[in-house]
This record gives sequence, structure tokens and C-alpha cells, in this order.
Amino acid sequence: MNILVTNDDGITSQGIYSLVEALRPLGSVTVVAPDRQQSAVGHALTVSEPLRVVRFWRDEQFFGYAVSGTPADCVKLAVARLLPTKPDIVVSGINHGYNTGINVLYSGTVSAATEAMLLGIPAVAISLGTFDENADCSVAARTAAYIVERYHEFELPPTTLLNVNVPPLPEHQIKGVRITRQGQGVWNDEYEERLDPMGRPYYWLRGTYNHLDSDPNADDVAVEQGYIAITPIHYDLTDRAAIERLKERF
Amino acid sequence: MNILVTNDDGITSQGIYSLVEALRPLGSVTVVAPDRQQSAVGHALTVSEPLRVVRFWRDEQFFGYAVSGTPADCVKLAVARLLPTKPDIVVSGINHGYNTGINVLYSGTVSAATEAMLLGIPAVAISLGTFDENADCSVAARTAAYIVERYHEFELPPTTLLNVNVPPLPEHQIKGVRITRQGQGVWNDEYEERLDPMGRPYYWLRGTYNHLDSDPNADDVAVEQGYIAITPIHYDLTDRAAIERLKERF
Repeated sequence: MNILVTNDDGITSQGIYSLVEALRPLGSVTVVAPDRQQSAVGHALTVSEPLRVVRFWRDEQFFGYAVSGTPADCVKLAVARLLPTKPDIVVSGINHGYNTGINVLYSGTVSAATEAMLLGIPAVAISLGTFDENADCSVAARTAAYIVERYHEFELPPTTLLNVNVPPLPEHQIKGVRITRQGQGVWNDEYEERLDPMGRPYYWLRGTYNHLDSDPNADDVAVEQGYIAITPIHYDLTDRAAIERLKERF
Repeated sequence: MNILVTNDDGITSQGIYSLVEALRPLGSVTVVAPDRQQSAVGHALTVSEPLRVVRFWRDEQFFGYAVSGTPADCVKLAVARLLPTKPDIVVSGINHGYNTGINVLYSGTVSAATEAMLLGIPAVAISLGTFDENADCSVAARTAAYIVERYHEFELPPTTLLNVNVPPLPEHQIKGVRITRQGQGVWNDEYEERLDPMGRPYYWLRGTYNHLDSDPNADDVAVEQGYIAITPIHYDLTDRAAIERLKERF
């Protein structure tokens, strides 16, 4: 099995390292990841600038290709240029921080998996619910390996990918796996205004996330309750129910 | 009516200017838009840097606020900081180039409308199918005004926005309006490799879009046939059909 690994925290992150270690026994793993932190880039592509690629070494071994772009760029470039054959699966992560609820829309981690799906490649995004760079990623890494090994058994449509979120708990405290839907929630945005040394204002985004869901089948609720949340997501954004109503109005 | 206008081509573009002119008779229009081209940024947010805002003048009149961020940043910052009250509607565009099919996922124009919807504000994204900066935007601008004026009649759910695409044709050649779904298609990616003066490679993305749809109700097909395509889109990405199958597997 040929496995492409990417992420949005950058090729130097702990999460991608743990993921690669866990996937190596399953096949040939190639890493193509951003050369720096790319959080909250959404499904951005680099179209107005060219991309650079450098070989990245870790522990005195070749670890992978570092790309001067977004997670979606990494997948596109890997498939079009860097890999000799189309990968059998793309795994994106392990992200530091949950990608649940509406955060999926802002997520570079999920967008890399989406890009793979658009290219016809099965894909998994995996995130661990902590921003601690030194967190133990082993449960998330084993979860990813478990899913990759069994992916074909799930018989998912080619337009669907798996978004997996893992609570930052030791394995014996994880209550199990829950198949979930994308949760509902909103960010309460605040922009803190500061003045630069010239007296000109600038604004820092600081949001707080408000859960609106209490359904245990919502991804953000499931992880808070100690479950690994697996959400199948697709990208037909059409609101089919609204089509009929609109047709009556035009 | 308080109308917030943004885009992803930047505050200097012709499209946003035409849009603002068309919307002024309907209410109070405030422009908060990126200070530069932001195409293909997807639903990116600026989280690792602060945002700058400058007042932008056009034809010797105050035109709007130019923000050093993405379209989604503009909407968030406008609502949280720059506007005295929550706008009644957000209109994003007029984008130069279609946002149909899977391109919706990469679109900064649509992401601005999505961000508005996430903040509980009705939203319209509007795009014109040409990259010609001097194209006649009048049909698209009048279409936007028509939709904004009648938006409340559509009785859309609060989680749905309208994605509108207008063919680059004179009005008498437009065949009408079609309520559409997001079309299917794929990009065939190519990365052109070049060498810099130091002999190091860099890669430019050049894709060609392959329509996979022939259904006249697909947005990309409708515009090619000369219709204005209006697609209601929402952001519950869950593939509900896949949930049951997955539940059997875990």
C-alpha cells in the first residue's frame, strides 16, 4: 500500500512524526507537507506564486518533502509531480487541536483530505484535541493505522472521506468509537485592538467557541464525552430542499 | 437595509465597484474587502498575524475599508469591530471568474458568504464568468441587486446561502435564471517545473477543468448554456448515508 501523509501544522510537527511511525508497518509512506504552520488556511491553493520543494531530514534520515504551500497544495503537487504512482490513501494529520463542528470549514488538515478525495483517492483526516506540542499522539496514531488498514472494508463512496477526532486521553480512558455527524456551534469573535509603535491600530482575532449541540452523535459532543469521533464527510454543498422553494420564486 | 459588501479580488477590483453602485439604491452599503487579490484562498482565516485596516478612497470619495486579510477575515472583522450594527445581508463579489462545481471549495468569494451565514447573516456570492478585468459587470450587478431586494421572499433556512454565477453575455443573450445544484467536475493538475537563476526548481500550478456533468441543472452546465445559475448551498458536510454503513463496521 502506498500512503501519502501530509498535515497543516508543518513537516516539523510532532503529530506528523507519530503518524508516520504508526503507518510505516502498513506500506510505503511518503511525506509531503507544508514547510511551516498552515493552520486555518481552509481549502486554500497557491495560484499566484510558484511552489518550492526541499527534502527534509529528521533524526539523520530522509523524512519527506517540505513544500512552500498549503496542505491542499501538498496533495496536488505530490500526486501530479512528486510521487511515481497515485497513492492508495492519503492521511492528513495528526493535527494538534480538534477539527470538529464548523471548524472543519477552516481546517487545513481536512482540506488536504478533501483534495485527495477530489483527486479520487481515499482519505482520512485525523486530529488530537490538544494544542500541547509534546502531547502523547500514540492513541491517535494507532487509530489512524487501524482505519487505514480497514479502509476498504468501510465501502465508502468515492466522494466521502473520514474526519477523525481523538480525545487527548490515555487509551484506557477512551470510551470507544462513535460514528458522528458534524456538530453545530459558532465562534464568538473578538478582535483585540492594539497600537503599534507608530500609534496605528492592528487587530488580533480571539474567538471563543460556543457549542450549540448536545446530541451525543455530534462530533464535538462525542469527543468531549471521551469517544473517538469518526465523521464521514462529503462536498456536495447543495441544499436540495431549498432548490424546490427557490424554483417557485423565480 | 444595511448591506456589507466584500470580495476576494480585492477592494480595487472592477467587480466590487459595479456591485456597490448597483446596491446603493437599496440601502446603506459598507465595503470591507481585502487590500489585495485573494483568489483561491478558500475559507482561510488569519490567525497567526494581526490584521491591518486602512480607509480606501476611490473617485475622491471614501469607498470602504481595506483589510490585510482574507475574505472570511473581512466579514468577521466587519461584524465584530467595524460596523456599528450587524448587517442585514452580506454580498460577496462580483468575482471575476465562475465559482461553480468544485471550485466553490477553493473560492474566497463563496467563503466570505459562508462566513456571513455562520454569523447568522443572509448571504449571496456572485461571480461573472470572465477574467477580463474590464468586463461589463452590469448584468451581474443588477442580478445581485434583484436578489438582495427579494431575499426575504425566498424563505431560505438560516444555514443556507445563495451562490450566483452569471455568464459574461449582454443582457439580451441571457436565457434566464436556473436554480441549480453544485456541478461535478475535476481539475487535471499540471505543475510546470522551471529553474530559478540559481538552478533550483520551482513549480507553477496550471490546471484544466474537466466537466463531468451534462445535467442542465448543474451550475457549471447552466452557465455554459447561457443561464444565470443560482445554487443554494449549506455547510453540513456530513454524509448521512455513510453513517449507517460505518456504524455496522465499528
